[in-house]
Amino acid sequence: MATGMELYLIRHGLAGEHGTYANDDERPLTAEGKQKTRQVAKRLVEFDLHFDWMLTSPLVRARQTAEILLEAGLAPQLEESVYLADGNLDGWLFWLKSWEPGSSRCLALVGHEPSLSEWAESLAFGRAIGSFQLKKAGIIGLYLPDQVAPVGRSTVFWLTPPRFLLSK
Amino acid sequence: MATGMELYLIRHGLAGEHGTYANDDERPLTAEGKQKTRQVAKRLVEFDLHFDWMLTSPLVRARQTAEILLEAGLAPQLEESVYLADGNLDGWLFWLKSWEPGSSRCLALVGHEPSLSEWAESLAFGRAIGSFQLKKAGIIGLYLPDQVAPVGRSTVFWLTPPRFLLSK
Repeated sequence: MATGMELYLIRHGLAGEHGTYANDDERPLTAEGKQKTRQVAKRLVEFDLHFDWMLTSPLVRARQTAEILLEAGLAPQLEESVYLADGNLDGWLFWLKSWEPGSSRCLALVGHEPSLSEWAESLAFGRAIGSFQLKKAGIIGLYLPDQVAPVGRSTVFWLTPPRFLLSK
Repeated sequence: MATGMELYLIRHGLAGEHGTYANDDERPLTAEGKQKTRQVAKRLVEFDLHFDWMLTSPLVRARQTAEILLEAGLAPQLEESVYLADGNLDGWLFWLKSWEPGSSRCLALVGHEPSLSEWAESLAFGRAIGSFQLKKAGIIGLYLPDQVAPVGRSTVFWLTPPRFLLSK
């Protein structure tokens, strides 16, 4: 198993219905979506997770989700990435090559479906066929290898919907 | 997404070291393994999970794990399956065809690595390349389609190690 980098793919929380905003990029989280995302963030803190860096799609519902994770103390700061809005895996992989986070390498990406689950499938299996289900505020965890290109060579160690995170 | 059947693949808990028993099939769970498996079972009950049927590998460490899940009330009863000892996916798929659980179809399999993660990869992607990491007492959840052969057509909705289940 390659353990070069831990990558957490996090889908934005529950947002308003598609079509309720003239500009869909502006569609925000609902009150319920914010609350559940806060609960998920709290749980991740309880698991001692800490991201060295966090990238988010600039779209409002993703940006709000990332800000909730940031406020929970899960990452030192937040950077926007257009690749997470348009689902451009090759673009993000190019960014990743130049990323210099120091010795510790644990990265979180906040974005959208179907891109995130497709990225996970491509990283783990070399192609995306729609076999991963990633719910809103759900998470996929992957180990990416260090010395080789990660597509088709990464390992999935976590995939969870929020319902298997939150306490009753 | 196909939602014909929910399948939960559960790896046995922490057992004694390989080589500590003359017959490896007899190797039992450690005290820590039993305790953590009980905690995982309690968590699954909190998530309102209930299996219509549970199959286990007859090997002691798997059988003990399944009995802990049974005692927690997660399934009505337990059946041994040799396919879970030898990792024979085709044999199990043949068994599955003749399984008649009634209208509700939620099945749990308790077994070993690398078979369980390989089965999950085969069901979701049509082949196993070692891209899933399933820890001891970890779980993979899949939706299997109803009307077609499930290999290469199933959906992964959950994959978790115990550390992302248990409260601190």
